[in-house]
Amino acid sequence: MPEEIEEIQEPTAHDFNQKHLLGLAHYSKEDILYVLDQARYFREILERPVPKVPTLRDKTIVNLFYESSTRTRLSFELAQKRMGADVVNFSAKASSVSKGESLKDTIRNISSMKIDMVVVRHESPGVPHFLTRCVDAAIINAGDGAHEHPTQALLDMYSMRDIHPDLQDKNIAIIGDIAHSRVVRSNIIGLTKIGANVTVCGPKTLMPVYVEELGATVSYNLEETLAWCDVAMALRIQLERQENGTELFPSIREYHQKFGITMKHLEKYPDFTIMHPGPVNRGVEMESEVADSKRSIILSQVTNGVAVRMAILYLLSGRSRV
Amino acid sequence: MPEEIEEIQEPTAHDFNQKHLLGLAHYSKEDILYVLDQARYFREILERPVPKVPTLRDKTIVNLFYESSTRTRLSFELAQKRMGADVVNFSAKASSVSKGESLKDTIRNISSMKIDMVVVRHESPGVPHFLTRCVDAAIINAGDGAHEHPTQALLDMYSMRDIHPDLQDKNIAIIGDIAHSRVVRSNIIGLTKIGANVTVCGPKTLMPVYVEELGATVSYNLEETLAWCDVAMALRIQLERQENGTELFPSIREYHQKFGITMKHLEKYPDFTIMHPGPVNRGVEMESEVADSKRSIILSQVTNGVAVRMAILYLLSGRSRV
Amino acid sequence: MPEEIEEIQEPTAHDFNQKHLLGLAHYSKEDILYVLDQARYFREILERPVPKVPTLRDKTIVNLFYESSTRTRLSFELAQKRMGADVVNFSAKASSVSKGESLKDTIRNISSMKIDMVVVRHESPGVPHFLTRCVDAAIINAGDGAHEHPTQALLDMYSMRDIHPDLQDKNIAIIGDIAHSRVVRSNIIGLTKIGANVTVCGPKTLMPVYVEELGATVSYNLEETLAWCDVAMALRIQLERQENGTELFPSIREYHQKFGITMKHLEKYPDFTIMHPGPVNRGVEMESEVADSKRSIILSQVTNGVAVRMAILYLLSGRSRV
Repeated sequence: MPEEIEEIQEPTAHDFNQKHLLGLAHYSKEDILYVLDQARYFREILERPVPKVPTLRDKTIVNLFYESSTRTRLSFELAQKRMGADVVNFSAKASSVSKGESLKDTIRNISSMKIDMVVVRHESPGVPHFLTRCVDAAIINAGDGAHEHPTQALLDMYSMRDIHPDLQDKNIAIIGDIAHSRVVRSNIIGLTKIGANVTVCGPKTLMPVYVEELGATVSYNLEETLAWCDVAMALRIQLERQENGTELFPSIREYHQKFGITMKHLEKYPDFTIMHPGPVNRGVEMESEVADSKRSIILSQVTNGVAVRMAILYLLSGRSRV
Repeated sequence: MPEEIEEIQEPTAHDFNQKHLLGLAHYSKEDILYVLDQARYFREILERPVPKVPTLRDKTIVNLFYESSTRTRLSFELAQKRMGADVVNFSAKASSVSKGESLKDTIRNISSMKIDMVVVRHESPGVPHFLTRCVDAAIINAGDGAHEHPTQALLDMYSMRDIHPDLQDKNIAIIGDIAHSRVVRSNIIGLTKIGANVTVCGPKTLMPVYVEELGATVSYNLEETLAWCDVAMALRIQLERQENGTELFPSIREYHQKFGITMKHLEKYPDFTIMHPGPVNRGVEMESEVADSKRSIILSQVTNGVAVRMAILYLLSGRSRV
Repeated sequence: MPEEIEEIQEPTAHDFNQKHLLGLAHYSKEDILYVLDQARYFREILERPVPKVPTLRDKTIVNLFYESSTRTRLSFELAQKRMGADVVNFSAKASSVSKGESLKDTIRNISSMKIDMVVVRHESPGVPHFLTRCVDAAIINAGDGAHEHPTQALLDMYSMRDIHPDLQDKNIAIIGDIAHSRVVRSNIIGLTKIGANVTVCGPKTLMPVYVEELGATVSYNLEETLAWCDVAMALRIQLERQENGTELFPSIREYHQKFGITMKHLEKYPDFTIMHPGPVNRGVEMESEVADSKRSIILSQVTNGVAVRMAILYLLSGRSRV
């Protein structure tokens, strides 16, 4: 469909009016495609000898992480620095949060220092939304409890479109601990909006009721799911939960036997692409060889994550400052 | 008084010879007013679309925090980055301090890396002064024990002057745990130097003997104090101390009843301005509505803090490098 | 020797083909001298009013510290920032390392974010070497277990050459806990390559068998060693080990009596120069006055460390990006 590709080449055609990125629930199909198209431009910049643009050189961004994070924090920080922003990091442990200051007072104080954007990760769902009511800065959700993780879903969709430029009617399987994942929620919301078919697959005890309401199909059979899908995205099993001995979880061995992706699967179903938000538990969600195979685009997801975050920072930076 | 305002417009008239900012005890009235006047320029810069100046682009600054801090560290870091300085952060826990290295060796080592300025917070009074004897870099005290916290007092005075351009003979009340506060010490020293009248008000058990020597009046009666003052600055009660069960502290409820500022106070005494160095314990030092009322300039204090720190960094950066 | 000085002035004569700095074992005599000569240029830059060069403004560097560090991390970060690089710090505690992610997956993920160079410190020997097999970025070893700490040895050699421009046949003594030191290994390897004579001196229980294989001479007699040497570099005694009560260590008092350098030594042997990688345990490895004497170049070592790291970063930045 050349017309749509033309539209992609000129993303300015769509009127992007978002002030924040709280979750994909608040973004229309057009918004999502617009972000993904913009990200393409930044993805090209990352391949340049000097992978930098001075787009945000007049902006100050605070990374406000109440949960520890490696790759998401690093990905945002690299995106910000490559766009020339002033970046300050704030992690909850070394802060006056421990002095009992309320979240509202914290954010209003930080915002009073003339901050343009806040990237926030918090264990409580809804914190990013709450912050938009406290301050005038643009708020970007970097993960709130089991609610949403929209930049992860956007980078996942970007990566899928690298393989399938039009995701309309493409079959996307998400496999694993569906119940505890903010990644799966954001992906179902985003993927169904842009017309993909989503099936979630995992143990019954880890399958929440809401997924069908969101528009996904449920399967408990990995073979059927892999036979059906164009992309299989495995989710990380939280081994910590497992160790706590909850009966909701099968043993790791049992999990791998029923839901782990193997080299035999790759051979039997020669078309689907492997994805994972990382970090992979090798030998659990998939065999180690699967993660490293040519069918896996796990490392591309990481690269694309920087580009997608650059695009979001760029699009939301148009806001007038506090 | 137009003459004085004229003088303020041309701050270069005063010969500022300070090498460090250890405390307001070492600054003359002229020095303090000079800093506050300079800060006005930086406060305007913060309102610009691009709130940056390249003034410190050739300087390297170390933030050396031996006590954790949210807003002070963030405020300094933003001030430094907006002036283009190279900034490195050093916090005590992740350092060879735990290997037993002495403070002197630490600072001399850091300084040998060609550092221009050191911002230091330490639990022991006198550490910033001690550092000036070890190295040639400019030292800025970001709080040393219960001794001084001069940039906080400067931002407080700056904020008061926004309301009362001439603080001569203005009545400033400081309310709370006077004994354990470095903020109150620096404020009394600075405010009395520039001609304001200072009354401190709080429980007898939290009233140190030195305040009258410093030139402040003591009151144990909140009503009388609020009736008298132009500005009422409440101090943060350290709830941690309270929980340790020391008999010096009244209960939180009792404290709020005797020294907490209420909406009724605002109604009864319609002129005084509310300040607080933050973070506020809502319902303790003041009712939550008081903190959020139009009479409160608590969030302006935070913004002004960045401007005041930019001014100090600028004024002390004239030093020749090590 | 004017010819050699001429050669130093034009370091481009040597063809430097190194991709990484894993250890001095992999560097030839010519490589080492080339780095040291380059460092001279950066050492001069550090004396300029604006001690910066934009050499790495298009590079992104990750400092990946799995062991805490003050001066090495700070020295690398200052070197990177003064060369205009984008710098992100990653420390192991606040990372998904604790989620069980393997080192290989961590580094490949970070590298997928388009990183040019990785500075790594890790408690396990060989980790930097392992990383070169996982990713395409330049790897710089900032200390791996008891294996190597090459930038420390390079700055030590740079500092020795400040005193003795030609180290050929100069006598270098390294004194202390030889067995547990990566600094001593890298120094022996580097110093013997460039023609210096190395004697290691310390308690028998702390003397590993490998030192003679590396080309050093062993002595258990401090007096003889000091009488012989041109430079005496004392190593830091790990007091923590001592406190654990291992029998390998003499008491601190006994150690100081047998291996501590005193003012009397300086008087008796008037020529040797004092060095120490820091932080010094004053009164253990040497008397406090020795550390502060004119014979000590301990603080110069710190300054030189920044220049040497700038040189290494510069020389390895020629690599094509991932």
